[in-house]
Amino acid sequence: MKILRVNMGTGSIRLEELPEKYALLGNRSLVSSLICDEVIPTCSPIGPNNRLYIASSPLEGFGVTSTGRISVGAKSPLTGGIKEANAGGTAGSRMARQGLGAIAIEGAAEGSWILRISSSGSELLEAPEFAGLGTYETTSRLLDRFGRDSSVISIGPAGENLLLSAGVFVSDVEGDSSRAAARGGLGAVMGSKGLKAIVIQNDGTYKPEPSDKAEFIKARLALHKAILENPGAQAYTNYGTMGILLPLHALGTLPGRGFTDADFKGVESVSGEKMLENMADRGGEGKAVHSCMPGCVIRCSNVYPDKNGRKIVSPLEYETSALLGTNLCIDDLDVIAELNRKCNDYGIDTIETGAALGVAAHAGILEWGDGRKAAELIDEIGKGTHLGKILGSGAAIAGKVLGVNKVPAVKGQAMAGYDPRGVKSMGATYAMTPMGADHTAAVTFRAPIDQFRWEGGIDVSRNIQVTVAFYDTYFCSFVARGVGPSTHLLKDLFNTAFGTEYQDDSFISEIGKECIKKERVFNIAAGVTEEWLPEWMREEPLEPHGRVADIPASEFERFWDKSFWGEFPPMPRRF
Amino acid sequence: MKILRVNMGTGSIRLEELPEKYALLGNRSLVSSLICDEVIPTCSPIGPNNRLYIASSPLEGFGVTSTGRISVGAKSPLTGGIKEANAGGTAGSRMARQGLGAIAIEGAAEGSWILRISSSGSELLEAPEFAGLGTYETTSRLLDRFGRDSSVISIGPAGENLLLSAGVFVSDVEGDSSRAAARGGLGAVMGSKGLKAIVIQNDGTYKPEPSDKAEFIKARLALHKAILENPGAQAYTNYGTMGILLPLHALGTLPGRGFTDADFKGVESVSGEKMLENMADRGGEGKAVHSCMPGCVIRCSNVYPDKNGRKIVSPLEYETSALLGTNLCIDDLDVIAELNRKCNDYGIDTIETGAALGVAAHAGILEWGDGRKAAELIDEIGKGTHLGKILGSGAAIAGKVLGVNKVPAVKGQAMAGYDPRGVKSMGATYAMTPMGADHTAAVTFRAPIDQFRWEGGIDVSRNIQVTVAFYDTYFCSFVARGVGPSTHLLKDLFNTAFGTEYQDDSFISEIGKECIKKERVFNIAAGVTEEWLPEWMREEPLEPHGRVADIPASEFERFWDKSFWGEFPPMPRRF
Repeated sequence: MKILRVNMGTGSIRLEELPEKYALLGNRSLVSSLICDEVIPTCSPIGPNNRLYIASSPLEGFGVTSTGRISVGAKSPLTGGIKEANAGGTAGSRMARQGLGAIAIEGAAEGSWILRISSSGSELLEAPEFAGLGTYETTSRLLDRFGRDSSVISIGPAGENLLLSAGVFVSDVEGDSSRAAARGGLGAVMGSKGLKAIVIQNDGTYKPEPSDKAEFIKARLALHKAILENPGAQAYTNYGTMGILLPLHALGTLPGRGFTDADFKGVESVSGEKMLENMADRGGEGKAVHSCMPGCVIRCSNVYPDKNGRKIVSPLEYETSALLGTNLCIDDLDVIAELNRKCNDYGIDTIETGAALGVAAHAGILEWGDGRKAAELIDEIGKGTHLGKILGSGAAIAGKVLGVNKVPAVKGQAMAGYDPRGVKSMGATYAMTPMGADHTAAVTFRAPIDQFRWEGGIDVSRNIQVTVAFYDTYFCSFVARGVGPSTHLLKDLFNTAFGTEYQDDSFISEIGKECIKKERVFNIAAGVTEEWLPEWMREEPLEPHGRVADIPASEFERFWDKSFWGEFPPMPRRF
Repeated sequence: MKILRVNMGTGSIRLEELPEKYALLGNRSLVSSLICDEVIPTCSPIGPNNRLYIASSPLEGFGVTSTGRISVGAKSPLTGGIKEANAGGTAGSRMARQGLGAIAIEGAAEGSWILRISSSGSELLEAPEFAGLGTYETTSRLLDRFGRDSSVISIGPAGENLLLSAGVFVSDVEGDSSRAAARGGLGAVMGSKGLKAIVIQNDGTYKPEPSDKAEFIKARLALHKAILENPGAQAYTNYGTMGILLPLHALGTLPGRGFTDADFKGVESVSGEKMLENMADRGGEGKAVHSCMPGCVIRCSNVYPDKNGRKIVSPLEYETSALLGTNLCIDDLDVIAELNRKCNDYGIDTIETGAALGVAAHAGILEWGDGRKAAELIDEIGKGTHLGKILGSGAAIAGKVLGVNKVPAVKGQAMAGYDPRGVKSMGATYAMTPMGADHTAAVTFRAPIDQFRWEGGIDVSRNIQVTVAFYDTYFCSFVARGVGPSTHLLKDLFNTAFGTEYQDDSFISEIGKECIKKERVFNIAAGVTEEWLPEWMREEPLEPHGRVADIPASEFERFWDKSFWGEFPPMPRRF
């Protein structure tokens, strides 16, 4: 596989072999390794020395399900530490066909540029006419120009304005810019480089050969079959991520009223069940089952239609419904879908934005439940007004500027849709992952421990974090549910595809641990070590159950014990 | 000595003996020790568990010169770490007469309150009529009400709005609220507690007895004589801090154009020399020699008059003229004095504000040199508009919100009037002091090393930091210049006043080191360890001399070597 190195400062574009040390690494492990090896930990996240990496999965070319996601990574302007965020859509498959394991965006340019990648060569195109455009329009125009089967990775005006809640958006199978590597402000990093969009044309011809083709086909089939037959994966197919909203409400962890109430009264009307009902009633473009990327058998995505059956947004997901919905006391899926579309178009993270709007409500700028005003505030973010810039800087900074103490954030990044007083082990994830309060590091609520107590939370989160880091390196992390304990399926897949000689499934935790350990040492070198839950969540009981986030400091402190992790890699030079 | 403990949440006021372990500690060492011992390092800086401490010097009651400053301390909302800031004025003397070594403000109240301290008892007075008032008006009204010889410690609207650049302001001999414990957002901590002002009435009768009165009087006289005869101290008397403006310009360290130019062309017109000329020409209320606190023999303060001889502000100081003047390309002392007065009245730090306005200029919101617009922006901070809240949150946050990379800050706090590329050892101070980029931790430009090179900078800064921490515990730090190497004067003073039996001057570095080590462990427990200069200053040469801030990481890393510091105290429990 290759790495395409694009220097925005000099305009140079080089296609290089991916160094041998990264062989078989993809997605999160690849971007985290590249950041750790190449980025100066104390660099300015929006300065020319930060680098934006995009990586694909080495399994994607083999036609394995759910391997089409891309990882986007850089030093985060939101947390100051390492950041990986991943997204579905078509970019992963286009990258794999071009033989691209990674794209590295280095340096910085003035103005607005498009990077076009094709098998006949890649080029940087100056594109002032794209400056300030939303991601939908940007994507649509670029697909029209370079082929509807191309893939587009773009930022919206928020990324151009270097707002810390800006994400990187990937086009989906229909050509919508609806797949977000949303978190950590990676869109601001892309914006700081003057790169408005990347177009990857679908003219690649790279096709890797399995090491043992016949056995590989059997292994792949067995994996797909296991996923398709798994009830957990089936639940994703049926409800998407929206299926967990009611269960999480029942657990007392669904955010409400700016993370001060876990018993939102309108919960039925924003549930996955209600979403399916609306889709069934409305017909039209609505789809309950939909693939975010080509060839995925889980198909957790959806297309949410308005009352006339016209698509509002695709997909409508749990985190968005929680943060922009119940968290703001908004009980109307149509309103939430509109807010979601606005966020996609301006190029901002729905989680960070929902949390920041919750801060705005605590500050008296927004009434709880006022969807119209919420839309106006999101428009302000898009326009870059002063208030918009405050809210577009994310929940933690909005809290500091507006003098709000009840901010649900760790390491500068907003929590996702799990109040850590409801499911205490989620507090361990938020606090300890190098990624800030990012649920994707480890969703723990299904673990068979008493989630109302902190005991066991550190271990559960740590184990899941390691497993997820492995899946994030090759697959959509939802594959983890499909595989479950049948990890021999992965051993067989890897050995037959790559010619590895794994005897057991220990490679899973080894790869996961290596990835996280690199992220950890990068963060230490960057000076990012604060890893505690906010004081107010440790002290203020969450209604209605009255629990607090009371994991003791000593539990957090043992998270990084070498007895679990082994030796850490050497810390990179700070500068 | 006593400590007055006021709980704003319960309304309880307790006068207690200062615990024996704090005997002989005052000012910075006392507030830092109290924070380290009593404040939860991971608490929210604007939450009820943070505590605001105010401490006086144990020498003040003995009539020793330059001991009337107070230290204000808390966990800083600006840096997230420990913060001590000190100020002159009359509060130190009034505290000492009340026998108060320290005041501790705990908990938080709704509304706006006044704490009145007198020898007949202390009380909390609800004072909604003071909400939103400037510090000048607040102070004036309270002095009228409780006696013009009282002292007032107050915050302005910025502190009430919890803005991170808000300071704590102390009344001076004339009753102006012009003495600022400005840095680190301590005004926001006071504001978060609902405490608008503290009035200390002048009815205290506490008078400590020297251990050996006859010898003490001799020792005190010798100290005062040495200071009065010292040319360095005399320079402060003649020019105040403004005397260093031209020398610092000559060294290439005077900030210009948002820390991108060290050769401001209008430097003569904002110099100490020009200030004296204006005072001489204008007469009236202007004063070139003025005491910030009763009984100080250095008298570095001044009263700056307008063209009609009416006081604009007292004092006009170097840091203000650098940050609000040359840093913004403003070359008119009258304009700078007006900006200064506005900052005092709104209750914000002139250093942080000047740096934030520099960020605004980099963002295109302010033209370089536009004093009228600068005044308007400061008014916005005072009014708490959205833009005002961005700028009032300090330079680092303003840079994040406005997408500006050239922010002169470390650990979230703006640099003072010394570009660390001009005087490289100042970079060591900014980077390594637990206080954020605070010059008061160690002004190093006079040290006899080659300031154009980094060699020796760490050692010079470290030694001065230790010495300053000692002086900050008992004296105005300018006494350090007056004493110079004649440290036996201090040994004699302490032994005769306190009955200590110091045989040499090693107690100076011992007390200084103990103070800083406590601050360091608190910061580690709070998660504040980032201690590097901003990347752009390491890379972008400063015109006209073309130097960069190139202290190697390895130098910073040896700053905390135990071979210098000895053992550190145990880290406080994080939460």
